[in-house]
Amino acid sequence: MQYFGKWSPDKKSFENRITSLFNIQYPIIQAGMIWASGWRLASAVSQAGGLGIIGAGSMYPEVLEEHIIKCKQATNKPFGVNLPLLYPAIEQHIAIILKHQVPIVFTSAGNPKIWTKTLKDAGITVVHVVSSAKFALKCQEAGVDAVVAEGFEAGGHNGREETTTLCLIPSVRKSIQIPLIAAGGIATGSGMLATMILGAEGVQIGSRFVCTEEASSHLHFKQKIVDASEGDTELVLKKITPVRLLKNDFYNQIKQAEIDCADTETLASILGKARAKKGMFEGDMVEGELEIGQISAIIDNIIPAKDVVESIWGEFNSLLHAFQRFS
Amino acid sequence: MQYFGKWSPDKKSFENRITSLFNIQYPIIQAGMIWASGWRLASAVSQAGGLGIIGAGSMYPEVLEEHIIKCKQATNKPFGVNLPLLYPAIEQHIAIILKHQVPIVFTSAGNPKIWTKTLKDAGITVVHVVSSAKFALKCQEAGVDAVVAEGFEAGGHNGREETTTLCLIPSVRKSIQIPLIAAGGIATGSGMLATMILGAEGVQIGSRFVCTEEASSHLHFKQKIVDASEGDTELVLKKITPVRLLKNDFYNQIKQAEIDCADTETLASILGKARAKKGMFEGDMVEGELEIGQISAIIDNIIPAKDVVESIWGEFNSLLHAFQRFS
Repeated sequence: MQYFGKWSPDKKSFENRITSLFNIQYPIIQAGMIWASGWRLASAVSQAGGLGIIGAGSMYPEVLEEHIIKCKQATNKPFGVNLPLLYPAIEQHIAIILKHQVPIVFTSAGNPKIWTKTLKDAGITVVHVVSSAKFALKCQEAGVDAVVAEGFEAGGHNGREETTTLCLIPSVRKSIQIPLIAAGGIATGSGMLATMILGAEGVQIGSRFVCTEEASSHLHFKQKIVDASEGDTELVLKKITPVRLLKNDFYNQIKQAEIDCADTETLASILGKARAKKGMFEGDMVEGELEIGQISAIIDNIIPAKDVVESIWGEFNSLLHAFQRFS
Repeated sequence: MQYFGKWSPDKKSFENRITSLFNIQYPIIQAGMIWASGWRLASAVSQAGGLGIIGAGSMYPEVLEEHIIKCKQATNKPFGVNLPLLYPAIEQHIAIILKHQVPIVFTSAGNPKIWTKTLKDAGITVVHVVSSAKFALKCQEAGVDAVVAEGFEAGGHNGREETTTLCLIPSVRKSIQIPLIAAGGIATGSGMLATMILGAEGVQIGSRFVCTEEASSHLHFKQKIVDASEGDTELVLKKITPVRLLKNDFYNQIKQAEIDCADTETLASILGKARAKKGMFEGDMVEGELEIGQISAIIDNIIPAKDVVESIWGEFNSLLHAFQRFS
């Protein structure tokens, strides 16, 4: 509980290292997700008091630039950009981020040593996403400001160790002193409080924000998440890069190929190109790749992003008050 | 928080449906584990105020009988027996449990409809272990008194849906009204509080109790758990029955066979017979099967079972008090 946080002196707000680092009201961060988190979602989350993030992973540099400009027009609150470091046009992305003085960058899928200094020298707050305590320590050594530790239950690309959020957070907490954000399996205020009791100082939430009105994900995809039940996602494609998918015909093809012991080339050819866009953005629920987390099982509506932030914070808050009255 | 619990009227103890159901002081249950939990461990946990459980899965009927008798001699507190329903000599096991009036039985790996009535008619409290909300509901319909919901991070045999404890508990909580115990990834008071915030009323703990002086597991195995780090376990043998193993030479053989797309027969022949006994009981760290959970990464000592119960309860309790003072 060392880093948990406290009420502000006027008792009207909650403060901890994450709210201070990002200058936000609630330590609730919306994950930067491909084909879901453009300027509409990011600005709505930031306006609501959380931290909105533009997911650059599915954006060409000029598209990213447009989203940054529009996000700044939509909110004067802090927002961030999520940048997968393996992106081919990474230098152009970085240039645009610097040009527009984006205040916060979440990097992932790559070595934090390469770009952290460049970003920090420009006054940008840098956070890196990891799936192990070992790599969290490397991030701290690379000088990042905070770490997101993401468990096995998370949607999309995922760590090879398969460590779940419940096991990962205490382990990462032991390994680093810098601020820690939990991700994977969180969609509610109770999930938020649970991971913060384990040592996190804030939460990064993906799946729940896909099912918002502002997410650019296709309505068919949002509806399929609402309909999803327990056991409807699985981590597959471990021979290439592990990714958690919602089960559909495309998943079935991959799964069957894996059962048949297909090699990397065969799997890559089934995967093909633009599968993720086809599914999550264009709404092809049959042939598209659908990345989502296990917690999709308890998501049952499509609501404004503001309502997501407020309901999570409201539940977190009322649990805290319930414990204060506990006797 | 509907079922969380409260202090007793004298504020000296904690009460909820789990402490009442089992007539125990703390809602901390030691998992019935093969080759680890005989009468010594079970009676030590029960004496310390938790619920100790004899793991019948690795016991012939006459061995089980001996352990029940010795457990009763060692403690007059409630204890239980864990009974995998697929055990070949199940009828003999049931007869011994009835003969010795064991007060509590945890059943697993089988259909709860078959034996629940027999046990309940004899006045026994019956709990069944599940890994999904769907099956939890079937247990409630079968008339069990409580359910253990066990997540993907747990050691040993595991569910096919791979749902983690963080996602499983809220989902099971929604599906049933009977008391719910969380299992998988819990070894500390903060893990206990986290899962209870998600809707559990108690916790079942395995890995942490293997590393106790009273566990009958071989010292080599206990030491290997102490030495284990993040990523040192993996869920394998999914073609037969998924099981989480600590990585060693035997695991490597299985893993290589799976990479080579070995069929069920080949895997079964590598597995052979008595691998679990060889590893966990006889201490062969090379050729033995070593079943343990992901949370083994943060376990770093071998201590008396009483100290495990007291340290978990102590941490849980001080977190509750910290929240009461939260301001």
